[in-house]
Amino acid sequence: MASYPLLDTIGDPADLRRLDRKFLPQLAEELRRFIVESVASTGGHFSSNLGTVELTIALHYVFNTPEDRIVWDVGHQTYGHKILTGRRAGMAKLRQKGGLAGFPRREESPYDTFGTAHSSTSISAAIGMAVAARAKGEDRRAIAVIGDGAMTAGMAFEALNNVKHSGANVIVVLNDNDMSISENVGALNNYLARLMSGRFYAATKKTAEKMLSVAPPMKELAKRIEEHAKGMLTPSTLFEEFGLNYTGPIDGHNLEVLIETLGNVARLDGPQFLHVVTKKGQGYKLAEEDPITYHGPGKFDPTVGLVKAKPAPEAKPKPTYTQVFGEWLCDMARLDKRLIAVTPAMREGSGLVKFSQDFPDRYFDVGIAEQHAVTFAAGMAAEGIKPVVAIYSTFLQRAYDQLIHDVAIQNLPVVFALDRGGLVGADGPTHHGAYDLAYLRCIPNLVVMAPTDENECRQMLYTGFTHDGPSAIRYPRGTGPGAEVLKSMQALPIGRGSIVREGKRVAILAFGSLLKPALDAAAELGATVANMRFVKPIDEELVAKLASSHELLVTVEEGCVMGGAGSAVLEALHAGGFSVPVIQLGLPDVFVEHGDPQQLLADCGLDRDGILKSIREHLSRTSGRRPGMAA
Amino acid sequence: MASYPLLDTIGDPADLRRLDRKFLPQLAEELRRFIVESVASTGGHFSSNLGTVELTIALHYVFNTPEDRIVWDVGHQTYGHKILTGRRAGMAKLRQKGGLAGFPRREESPYDTFGTAHSSTSISAAIGMAVAARAKGEDRRAIAVIGDGAMTAGMAFEALNNVKHSGANVIVVLNDNDMSISENVGALNNYLARLMSGRFYAATKKTAEKMLSVAPPMKELAKRIEEHAKGMLTPSTLFEEFGLNYTGPIDGHNLEVLIETLGNVARLDGPQFLHVVTKKGQGYKLAEEDPITYHGPGKFDPTVGLVKAKPAPEAKPKPTYTQVFGEWLCDMARLDKRLIAVTPAMREGSGLVKFSQDFPDRYFDVGIAEQHAVTFAAGMAAEGIKPVVAIYSTFLQRAYDQLIHDVAIQNLPVVFALDRGGLVGADGPTHHGAYDLAYLRCIPNLVVMAPTDENECRQMLYTGFTHDGPSAIRYPRGTGPGAEVLKSMQALPIGRGSIVREGKRVAILAFGSLLKPALDAAAELGATVANMRFVKPIDEELVAKLASSHELLVTVEEGCVMGGAGSAVLEALHAGGFSVPVIQLGLPDVFVEHGDPQQLLADCGLDRDGILKSIREHLSRTSGRRPGMAA
Repeated sequence: MASYPLLDTIGDPADLRRLDRKFLPQLAEELRRFIVESVASTGGHFSSNLGTVELTIALHYVFNTPEDRIVWDVGHQTYGHKILTGRRAGMAKLRQKGGLAGFPRREESPYDTFGTAHSSTSISAAIGMAVAARAKGEDRRAIAVIGDGAMTAGMAFEALNNVKHSGANVIVVLNDNDMSISENVGALNNYLARLMSGRFYAATKKTAEKMLSVAPPMKELAKRIEEHAKGMLTPSTLFEEFGLNYTGPIDGHNLEVLIETLGNVARLDGPQFLHVVTKKGQGYKLAEEDPITYHGPGKFDPTVGLVKAKPAPEAKPKPTYTQVFGEWLCDMARLDKRLIAVTPAMREGSGLVKFSQDFPDRYFDVGIAEQHAVTFAAGMAAEGIKPVVAIYSTFLQRAYDQLIHDVAIQNLPVVFALDRGGLVGADGPTHHGAYDLAYLRCIPNLVVMAPTDENECRQMLYTGFTHDGPSAIRYPRGTGPGAEVLKSMQALPIGRGSIVREGKRVAILAFGSLLKPALDAAAELGATVANMRFVKPIDEELVAKLASSHELLVTVEEGCVMGGAGSAVLEALHAGGFSVPVIQLGLPDVFVEHGDPQQLLADCGLDRDGILKSIREHLSRTSGRRPGMAA
Repeated sequence: MASYPLLDTIGDPADLRRLDRKFLPQLAEELRRFIVESVASTGGHFSSNLGTVELTIALHYVFNTPEDRIVWDVGHQTYGHKILTGRRAGMAKLRQKGGLAGFPRREESPYDTFGTAHSSTSISAAIGMAVAARAKGEDRRAIAVIGDGAMTAGMAFEALNNVKHSGANVIVVLNDNDMSISENVGALNNYLARLMSGRFYAATKKTAEKMLSVAPPMKELAKRIEEHAKGMLTPSTLFEEFGLNYTGPIDGHNLEVLIETLGNVARLDGPQFLHVVTKKGQGYKLAEEDPITYHGPGKFDPTVGLVKAKPAPEAKPKPTYTQVFGEWLCDMARLDKRLIAVTPAMREGSGLVKFSQDFPDRYFDVGIAEQHAVTFAAGMAAEGIKPVVAIYSTFLQRAYDQLIHDVAIQNLPVVFALDRGGLVGADGPTHHGAYDLAYLRCIPNLVVMAPTDENECRQMLYTGFTHDGPSAIRYPRGTGPGAEVLKSMQALPIGRGSIVREGKRVAILAFGSLLKPALDAAAELGATVANMRFVKPIDEELVAKLASSHELLVTVEEGCVMGGAGSAVLEALHAGGFSVPVIQLGLPDVFVEHGDPQQLLADCGLDRDGILKSIREHLSRTSGRRPGMAA
């Protein structure tokens, strides 16, 4: 057992605040060591948590938490925060079902003042909290801790633009580590780099001093210029334009500097902006050198580091859907020069590494900027380019208006490669792709597909790409059933599903990832199974055929029941004048928690047994009744 | 008939470009006069179109349109553009069914390169176009013309942050008139005002000159400082940080200056930013003095101006739903100090003028910043404030992720007062609130209500406000049936509808605004009518009751059929084991065009006659068949 003598004494931040400052570096060492050991045993976010050890200690040391409110942007860097706020024991079950969440959660602790996970919400939330405190006559600070990657999202800008106007007493701490999940891009990033180099301020100061020495009578004038220049030439410019008082950049791994500076900032009135420079992976060499690989690793031996998983000697490893997409994209790009790919800061997660290397001129990482990503693609599509936007299902929520207003209304041929459709597992409710089928299928002109295996995913991507209008191909996180992926590509007929198992009485209409358990359940029941393929347009003929020849239809999808693909089946049935009973299986009307995806699916009744159980219960309830009649 | 000798000669921008520059002021005068006459006779956007007369002429004069692409942000300022690009005759039917759209539309003209209407999309689209041109080896410019109000939206910032990185040869023309629809707010606005005043640059220049005169040996040093200072102190700072070359501010009503400067900018390589200052309503005194009132007037006599409509001597004028909301908000604010109202730049349109005057400390106009608006509200709600976000249905699409991620997952009590739900009329497909019921009802924790009359709207707002969780009250543009609005407020039982007309065989389940035609149709048929009130949670008991006692159910809503409220009824029916036939009436799966709302509803079969027709057709098709059986 590793030893954590000082960390053992910290039950909550009040304990921390009673420590003499000279002990804090030791505490930081222990906390960092604990995080390494803990994440190595559970998996989880790593580099970002090592980078914020000192900042976390300093914030809780200086501010009176939880009375003062800290909002951690994105929140995957809060392991140190969780450990220091009474949740150290819980780290053993981090991101597991019933265990601690990987992000701040209001239900979990009063120190988690605002749930985060999607980026760039913290400043808006902190302004809200500060305005609320003022309205209630309460004296507290609201502190947003936001990374430089998250600063590129428009919503952070909207918030900055409102800080001063709101009169909110907020502190924005910029955790500048020059990296979000992918490398950062964009003008803001260059600007921050320039701030850090500090060149402007140093140069000006030197000039001013020189002037003072050579021309004494001009002292007064020079002083005035210096003052003037300081206000404009120090690194403060951009943020001070937004009405925040800029301080920094300071070393985010120096506790003395952090505590002194945070203390000063805390005493100042009005909106404050503190620029802190940290290093992702700080203190763990391998992560410092490769923070992207160590962004969110699985379990590993901390003395060895991550080891490339050796494939089982005989079995060829199954590709993930993400990889299937990445390969298709490269193949398609070679076949069609019009293809251009866009990602909002998800090169690794979306499988674009190879494409970005092979087609650098046709690859656009726009940073965390989903809105821009979609309308940028629409602009290209309006000019005859065939853009492919690779985006996670939940992140497309950020560009919903752009999808409707810029892509769908104009019927522009943009392909949305929607990764992480369905339950993602450990990242939990903020990251589950639960609502996409519902929020997409109400949009006119859009074709929405859900592949049941890897090869179908490839063929659907091709189908979308060759379709003259917008399309979304929605596939899950991780691997599929392991179908052989054909090199050849053939467009599927739009809006056509097919029967993949002929059976009797019961017909299961499967959408996407859940075809396998549907088939397993059907084998047990002797039921028919259809692979519906298209959520929109729904295959009305196939629905009619199944309704005419079965006593019960069962829709199965890894998405919300409300308004989802199953509802499309209901709509088609009623429009066609059918009144066969239907069971809709899918995600329930609650936010599904984090945990193992297979376990979560089982909890939702979406594995083989769950599907069987739902059908059998229905059949036993209605046995003896004439099919098609009201209960 | 007014005379337009010069304008008569302009069939397209090529004609314009053949004109000698000396004639352009006269053309501007005629164009302005034509716009006044035209809008006075049709209604439409006014102030913004008068403000861009010279800019429109100059852009088409300097650039080789449509080869060079102009993207007009928001696009309600494109009347001059439409008139100069061959659509002058069409202005007589502007915003009417089958006539010209009030915004740019790709289908309408090759000069409308990208459809706009929601703000802040133009820079992203222009970057996309420029990247596409480069990829295709075509040499053209892409020009985004964007107002200062639209610049406050995060999406404009995301685009700016990507201009340089994209390598796109774009020109951003900032049309700075210090006003969006409401007055502008926020730091950016102050910044632009400071740029315009030009104080910094003037002050510095003077200082530098003084230095030169008093200390000749320091000339070299001073020159270097001045150069240094110029780079930082001229108005260029903020936009040049984003890698754009800043020019301006210039007078947007001086054609000579505009054409010279645009010509210079067009010759420069790399991303350009031109700051043009215009005046909304320019050239029409009444609009100059009150650009908000003249933002989007109805028909008026141009020689007199807008006249306050006199109410018919006997009838008390019906309040709009917007007014009902505004009054409720003031009443509620007096009763509960925790209420704080938030609007994204829609004070007038959302009925918040009185509230903003009576409760200035509890009123937050955040500018065009829907994402921030929602998460700002969530931050307040997390601290015990009861925020009310007043927002148009289509604009909430901009904050869909924030609604899910920040409000609903945390189950925070934010009230969404969703105005413009359903068909809005002349503004067309970009502004119809067609998808809200579908995209809202899939979200857990959210209560979604749709009032059938003014008083119910008030009571629903109260219900949402007193509910301990998020809620949306969705009401249409314009007036309702004219119900008496009770001063008293009483919370409705959540998820309960009621039968408002007892009938036989057919039951119409009406959601929101279409209760009236549903009742009219029912009177003819002897049908039952239910006011469902809640789209989520749906009243399962009431659905069951109606299903058990009727042969046919008909759902009626002013929203998309796909995934809408009617689908909630289908889901409840099937979950309850009912198999009664259902007709779903609502908006079809196409983008409904602009036109008179009543006419559009009739076209969609959503007036009394349309409802009757659908039901009768169904009854005649199924007559003789046993109810409840498949076709």
